[in-house]
Amino acid sequence: MPIREIHLDTSTMRVVALAGGVGGAKLVDGLAQILPPEHLTVIVNVGDDFEHLGLKVCPDLDTVCYTLAGLANPETGWGRIDDTWQMLDSLSELGGPNWFRIGDRDLALHLERTQRLRMGLPLSQVTHDLCERLGVQVRVLPVTDDQMPTMVQTAFGELLFQDYFVRQRCEPAVTGFRFAGVDQARPAPGVVEALHRADLVVLCPSNPWVSLDPILAVPGVISAIGTHRVVGVSPIISGKTIKGPAAKMFYELGLQASALAVAQHYSTLLSAFILDEQDDTLAEGVQELDILPYVTDTIMRTKSDRRRLALEVLEFSKLL
Amino acid sequence: MPIREIHLDTSTMRVVALAGGVGGAKLVDGLAQILPPEHLTVIVNVGDDFEHLGLKVCPDLDTVCYTLAGLANPETGWGRIDDTWQMLDSLSELGGPNWFRIGDRDLALHLERTQRLRMGLPLSQVTHDLCERLGVQVRVLPVTDDQMPTMVQTAFGELLFQDYFVRQRCEPAVTGFRFAGVDQARPAPGVVEALHRADLVVLCPSNPWVSLDPILAVPGVISAIGTHRVVGVSPIISGKTIKGPAAKMFYELGLQASALAVAQHYSTLLSAFILDEQDDTLAEGVQELDILPYVTDTIMRTKSDRRRLALEVLEFSKLL
Repeated sequence: MPIREIHLDTSTMRVVALAGGVGGAKLVDGLAQILPPEHLTVIVNVGDDFEHLGLKVCPDLDTVCYTLAGLANPETGWGRIDDTWQMLDSLSELGGPNWFRIGDRDLALHLERTQRLRMGLPLSQVTHDLCERLGVQVRVLPVTDDQMPTMVQTAFGELLFQDYFVRQRCEPAVTGFRFAGVDQARPAPGVVEALHRADLVVLCPSNPWVSLDPILAVPGVISAIGTHRVVGVSPIISGKTIKGPAAKMFYELGLQASALAVAQHYSTLLSAFILDEQDDTLAEGVQELDILPYVTDTIMRTKSDRRRLALEVLEFSKLL
Repeated sequence: MPIREIHLDTSTMRVVALAGGVGGAKLVDGLAQILPPEHLTVIVNVGDDFEHLGLKVCPDLDTVCYTLAGLANPETGWGRIDDTWQMLDSLSELGGPNWFRIGDRDLALHLERTQRLRMGLPLSQVTHDLCERLGVQVRVLPVTDDQMPTMVQTAFGELLFQDYFVRQRCEPAVTGFRFAGVDQARPAPGVVEALHRADLVVLCPSNPWVSLDPILAVPGVISAIGTHRVVGVSPIISGKTIKGPAAKMFYELGLQASALAVAQHYSTLLSAFILDEQDDTLAEGVQELDILPYVTDTIMRTKSDRRRLALEVLEFSKLL
């Protein structure tokens, strides 16, 4: 049963959320509805980042920023709400690549970010400045300013993530993942400090393999999490995901696609784990991993659902 | 009095037009309405080209190509007809530079061109391929594949052309021009060959200082024109221009802004010169330069005006 809001003193709690795309961004938005902005830091996956049309595109950063700015497109899970497609239509006429759909308004962000990066500014600084322009007060940090593209390993060889995800529609069966160059990547300024200061680290309901693992793979991140309280929220509900290929990936890797498998994947890190009520039979298995389970409705359909789930995450963490 | 069309055998006449922006593009469109496409080559100024938002923008090439494709915006003199401004609006919100207005559909051309150039293709090849996509059958050639940015010299120092032209609205008084790097520029493939084969070279009604001079400044162009018949059309009518700063530039350089001054500027090159009927008193002065004058209505308001003037240019050239 949900814990009552009245117990929560959010004014002193410092939270760091680790997030990838849509699911993660929704929980982050819930947390942002509750916490004062200076107490919430979001550390975002950059393994999906790639260059398209000569522009630096950062899908997870954009999903988080657009969601926090209230500009996210709720239907697609990417891009901006009420965007138009004039550039893309014309690009198609010119024989340009149209498999990755960038809307006209969305394009401005990629153009401006790319220009600022070319001027030599680091991605973390550029993200900060663009967030300010978008009216996002929460601190959004790319996990690193370095390149670490996620390579999806398949029977057909390695694919760049967006090639696998968008162009090939996640169809090739995966055999593994590689975050190219991650060994040399350094955490972006603020990442380690935010984790050190955190009262709570939240693993958002994002894809473990291609959203959270790349964040955790950056040298220094896991040690900065240290022995902090870590609460995870399952991205898998009743063997499926709301969006994205996480469940399919578990199957293809020879694992069960379940909330329990997610808890197992992060067992050394998690203090507690939140499962959907559809998976209440798995709570015992989570408990056996020495992880405190909590069962609730984790599906975030509305903006107030996000807030409600975020509140439960925070309240529950106080019991740890 | 206009010459009657019946005399013209256009099937064998090979024409090369030298053109800059709007005025030049209109006459080129007139020529394209008459000549078989394989008999018309347009050599276009690239001194205005610059990088904006990380993209290669070629204003004169685009004006010529859009005009020939029937896509030019008749009101602005640049960009595409019926374009939208979603990207630019969003870019402004993000604090990006919005002084150079690129429409959403227009943007696709710059993005695609820039990508192809980055792949190592020369501008002439990229222009050819994009023209094909736009349905432009006439051969449109940048005068060179090399960089030769027009620098406008003013009391405030040298300005890049687009900075002078768009950002500063042609306000600073000019003292001269420099085409940076032109000494090392080589004519693009096809330029010299087209000029060698030409039965007629047309100097379109484009700005002498910043549209035609940079074309003629590319080593090899003037010698390839050699002793061919060259007909010019005055961009200055009754001391003014239809569009652009040519007349203002003549004044600021201490010259009269007149069709006669244009004829004098190109006196070593011209066999004949076409003046507007408003300037019929100047025909005698042109004659004194050993240039055959022809007086007609040179203002191209409609598509059929373009055809009519082009026809007069062609017919007149047969008398040379």
